[in-house]
Amino acid sequence: MERPFDEELMSLKKLLLEMAGLVEEAITDAVASLKERREDKAREVIEREKAVNLYDIEIDALAMKLLALHQPVAVDLRFITSAMRICSDLERMGDQAVNIAERSMDLILLPLLKPLIDIPEMARLAESMVKDAIDAFVRGDAALAQRVCERDDEVDHLNDQVFRELLTFTMADAETIPRAMDLILVARSLERIADHATNIGEHVIYLREGRVIKHGLGQGS
Amino acid sequence: MERPFDEELMSLKKLLLEMAGLVEEAITDAVASLKERREDKAREVIEREKAVNLYDIEIDALAMKLLALHQPVAVDLRFITSAMRICSDLERMGDQAVNIAERSMDLILLPLLKPLIDIPEMARLAESMVKDAIDAFVRGDAALAQRVCERDDEVDHLNDQVFRELLTFTMADAETIPRAMDLILVARSLERIADHATNIGEHVIYLREGRVIKHGLGQGS
Repeated sequence: MERPFDEELMSLKKLLLEMAGLVEEAITDAVASLKERREDKAREVIEREKAVNLYDIEIDALAMKLLALHQPVAVDLRFITSAMRICSDLERMGDQAVNIAERSMDLILLPLLKPLIDIPEMARLAESMVKDAIDAFVRGDAALAQRVCERDDEVDHLNDQVFRELLTFTMADAETIPRAMDLILVARSLERIADHATNIGEHVIYLREGRVIKHGLGQGS
Repeated sequence: MERPFDEELMSLKKLLLEMAGLVEEAITDAVASLKERREDKAREVIEREKAVNLYDIEIDALAMKLLALHQPVAVDLRFITSAMRICSDLERMGDQAVNIAERSMDLILLPLLKPLIDIPEMARLAESMVKDAIDAFVRGDAALAQRVCERDDEVDHLNDQVFRELLTFTMADAETIPRAMDLILVARSLERIADHATNIGEHVIYLREGRVIKHGLGQGS
């Protein structure tokens, strides 16, 4: 027997939240592995990616099944297509956490480069954006989602700053180059994680208000 | 009056192909701006991004309309959801072309760093993957799509090589650091373009065969 449609929608949401929990953990652990120079945490992040990928496949399959069997319209249709997109953003965040963990494993083998500069601050911001984007989705809170999107510029700005500071650093001491390159890539991954959080914020706004705000549409109007 | 469903599907496909054409052009011009040190080409890429984003919005809106009004099933449903995903991959490729163009504009201001090392080869490979992925979609050619996916490792390998070679380079001459960093980021963007081409290949296989191959599923089975 088919399960009722509402139950299926709830289980789609539940899967997404489980996946989001895994991805949040992956990001936190990846950043911790960098700050605390802990290879075990980096390895865990890399291991955990498989589980994230299984969620990606399961969520996609369920969403397609719901579209095919129930042919939903209006808000249910928007919920399902948003779920597919949020899932894809979560999966890409998971990939970025793996990138950070890999850089971190590289860095652990090298002597400590003292200043992580603004990277911890970037990480803090990106993590809070991910958390708020998921909360906005759970609560259907478009205002919170909007605030997530607004913080993206701050992360971009920090990323540029990190890039410039690390550059100056390497010019003063060529020995630091490999470590600086690793850190530049870490900052880039954090910036991309913030981008995906922003995408999720945009999906939540679309889901709640049926209005597209990506690519600067709908701003100030 | 509503247009017939088949006509709407054709216009969805047409929009996707137009968008793909724009994105292919953006990638080619971004790489040319780097190789030929032409700021005008870099600027064109950055300008053209707005048009790519408009396609993204238009395709998404049409796909949602088709899902809502016609409640398609089976192959039509797969076509529409694949179109939404391909559109998202194309849009992200467009972003990467802009990243390359921005690095290129940076590099034009600096003295020429002779060896672009394996970057032209990476660009050639990535461009051919994009072209073949789109062709596979147009012709519904799952075998061609499969070959696109198989070339992804080659690009990843070249990216690692470029990273290592540029690193050695900067250790020998600290003056080259800013240029080397720009080139490392260009290589990363090319690698991500190849990833998105691979995603499109996977969507085509899914569309044709209803089988999911992402995350290593379905390989060798």
